[in-house]
Amino acid sequence: MKNIINIAVVGLGQVGIYLLNELNIKKKDIELKTGKKINVVAVSARNIFKKRRFKINKKIFFKNPLEIFNKTKVDILFEAIGMSDGIFKKVVETALKNKIHVITPNKALISKHGDYLGKLAEDNGVNLEFEASVAGGIPILRAIKEGLATNKILKVYGILNGTTNYILSEMENSNQSFSEVLKKAQKLGYAEPGNPKLDLNGFDAFAKVRILSALAFNNKISKHKCLMEGIEKIELKDIKIANQLDLRIKLLGISELKNNQLFETVHPCLVSKKSYIGNVGGVMNAVIIEGKPVGESILQGEGAGPGPTSSALLSDLLLILKGNINNPFGVSVSNLKSLKPYNINNYTNSLYLRFEVKDKPGVLSQITNRLAKYDISIKRLIQTPDKKNNKATIVIITHKTSELNSINCLAIFKNNKNILKTPTLIRLLG
Amino acid sequence: MKNIINIAVVGLGQVGIYLLNELNIKKKDIELKTGKKINVVAVSARNIFKKRRFKINKKIFFKNPLEIFNKTKVDILFEAIGMSDGIFKKVVETALKNKIHVITPNKALISKHGDYLGKLAEDNGVNLEFEASVAGGIPILRAIKEGLATNKILKVYGILNGTTNYILSEMENSNQSFSEVLKKAQKLGYAEPGNPKLDLNGFDAFAKVRILSALAFNNKISKHKCLMEGIEKIELKDIKIANQLDLRIKLLGISELKNNQLFETVHPCLVSKKSYIGNVGGVMNAVIIEGKPVGESILQGEGAGPGPTSSALLSDLLLILKGNINNPFGVSVSNLKSLKPYNINNYTNSLYLRFEVKDKPGVLSQITNRLAKYDISIKRLIQTPDKKNNKATIVIITHKTSELNSINCLAIFKNNKNILKTPTLIRLLG
Repeated sequence: MKNIINIAVVGLGQVGIYLLNELNIKKKDIELKTGKKINVVAVSARNIFKKRRFKINKKIFFKNPLEIFNKTKVDILFEAIGMSDGIFKKVVETALKNKIHVITPNKALISKHGDYLGKLAEDNGVNLEFEASVAGGIPILRAIKEGLATNKILKVYGILNGTTNYILSEMENSNQSFSEVLKKAQKLGYAEPGNPKLDLNGFDAFAKVRILSALAFNNKISKHKCLMEGIEKIELKDIKIANQLDLRIKLLGISELKNNQLFETVHPCLVSKKSYIGNVGGVMNAVIIEGKPVGESILQGEGAGPGPTSSALLSDLLLILKGNINNPFGVSVSNLKSLKPYNINNYTNSLYLRFEVKDKPGVLSQITNRLAKYDISIKRLIQTPDKKNNKATIVIITHKTSELNSINCLAIFKNNKNILKTPTLIRLLG
Repeated sequence: MKNIINIAVVGLGQVGIYLLNELNIKKKDIELKTGKKINVVAVSARNIFKKRRFKINKKIFFKNPLEIFNKTKVDILFEAIGMSDGIFKKVVETALKNKIHVITPNKALISKHGDYLGKLAEDNGVNLEFEASVAGGIPILRAIKEGLATNKILKVYGILNGTTNYILSEMENSNQSFSEVLKKAQKLGYAEPGNPKLDLNGFDAFAKVRILSALAFNNKISKHKCLMEGIEKIELKDIKIANQLDLRIKLLGISELKNNQLFETVHPCLVSKKSYIGNVGGVMNAVIIEGKPVGESILQGEGAGPGPTSSALLSDLLLILKGNINNPFGVSVSNLKSLKPYNINNYTNSLYLRFEVKDKPGVLSQITNRLAKYDISIKRLIQTPDKKNNKATIVIITHKTSELNSINCLAIFKNNKNILKTPTLIRLLG
């Protein structure tokens, strides 16, 4: 590798502009640690005039990122936009084909095209690094790829989305509804102001689960349809009831080997308030890895925001500057396995079920009979009347039952006039 | 690097023999991940006939490890003995001089001779890796050297010794005395059967603090005398009182920049039961890193035992097999700083003071007057009489005061006949 390294930054949103500033102020430190001088030779964004937190050098600005490749010699490209397809994929593709190393926090891109782009990087002898795509500042991918490389990993799970974790924590702390807290999160920059859907519905966490699976199990990025539920249906009422039961609701992403089949899921979980994961609040992320022989490892840190993301992007940069050429997924893409999917119908959990019912005789027995018919046994039942409105809330904690069983059992309640709305179901962890 | 790599393992204690077995069973996995075939060509220990958990190949056994260098061609040497000087240092030195990569979990060696050996490795173009020396299976050194490489780290602290953490947790859980629990820990293999002193008096944790400081602050291994206190004086009584105050006692290692001076310490701390660190129990280790821009990162995992240690040793092996030649301390030893030490006299904490006194009038006022004279103000005071023995226990939680102040203030109590034993002092965190 040469001693002067040319860098391009494509995408000057919150992350891109912060990164640009960090590259500038950490130049000397990077030279001390790697012996390489870095030089930003191109930046690209849609709008040159947009108001930004730090100044940009307009002389090296490109409106069309693809033009960078014709006009400048670039060694390393940061892609900091965040869409899985279109020109953003094209930029990464073109860079790799031109033997340019690529560093990206783009989980949508990697969780969709990771195998293809990884292979492209390997074929061209360059790096494709994406530490920032999962759990922001936590060096979790490196921990799996390197620190725990020879372990047999059995399970990786945790809180992978800071937005939803903030919302759930804040609903509990402030006693405010989902929609009120969502507005607050948007004001604070913790949730997308325009369309927060991809955080709320579990999609963002699920993309991270897919990347974690690939690394933990040396598997191709899976394409299987899986269980993905977000937090949109969680009501303040559920949070309060959980609280009484000494439980807390967390949106967990889980990737696990079950009978050597791959099980990937994202859904809200009820966890003990006394557990480690139950105490990870606010925008924090936490990932728990169960491996042999290492045992249980936990990594926790700030999961999002330009600071933590830049920390991860720069760690990837240092790796490349030190001349460490690595397979993007730890082993060569051609050696990645294709694990079969675990049948989601067999996924077994204790359930929290909340029914809003008319307060009249026989309703409770309708519910319990139905559960009994499906062999779902009840561990705990709390009925709270709302005399004024002639309603009642029935919360049932069940013993373990399979996903298939619970779906079949609950389906029938939709047509019961005494049950005022679709029951809320939250799975208990473990 | 060649395609077949010769390996020597020096030291076949608990860790060495476990490692040897792992090298054997993970051969194929290692080849898949690195493209290199590994071959164990030499093992060494004091006694060839000792009963071991796994068989050794007696044909490649060396009683004197230094003979390995004359008789075999070795590429990578594992040193798994654990003393800082003598033949163990000589083995590492000779290996590096012969351009053999060295991997070691030996914190005593690195925390004493790290600079010298690191320079030797750099001069000979080989790696000296010691991930296993701090916090066992947690890839903490790699996280600092690589994952968080461009962060400005301000503080690293945590639970760095599993033995003492087990003892403190178990005293609380079982209501047994220090000496009873120590015996249990020895039986379970959590404490050295012969001489557990280096764990109990804080020395082991302190060696790890020194290594963490060097990496976090790009500093030479410091030689300054520092505050090092172990857990030998902690009584069950203190644990019970802490419990009543919603606190818990933890042995913490702390490395911090204060006014750009280096502050390193190991001592028992009272921490909130609700805090993260207060809930790390048993033999677990946990390290908290405060950095900019990453914020707070936490890494937790099993800190000791052959499984976690082997996990770290093998991660170092993979790094070397991938051809990643790195400076042992992240930056070249010649670029490491020599930070001045922070004056320990200025270290400021709230204190927990426990006095065992004669139950007679005037004793309490003697104590409080003395504290007042040194401007140590009292936040909380609990006096518990022991009428039968005509004694009393006085526990005082003070507001913040400096180390110097507290030493001077407490010194005088030694000559007070009403105070039956040297007061117990435990600092509160934060």
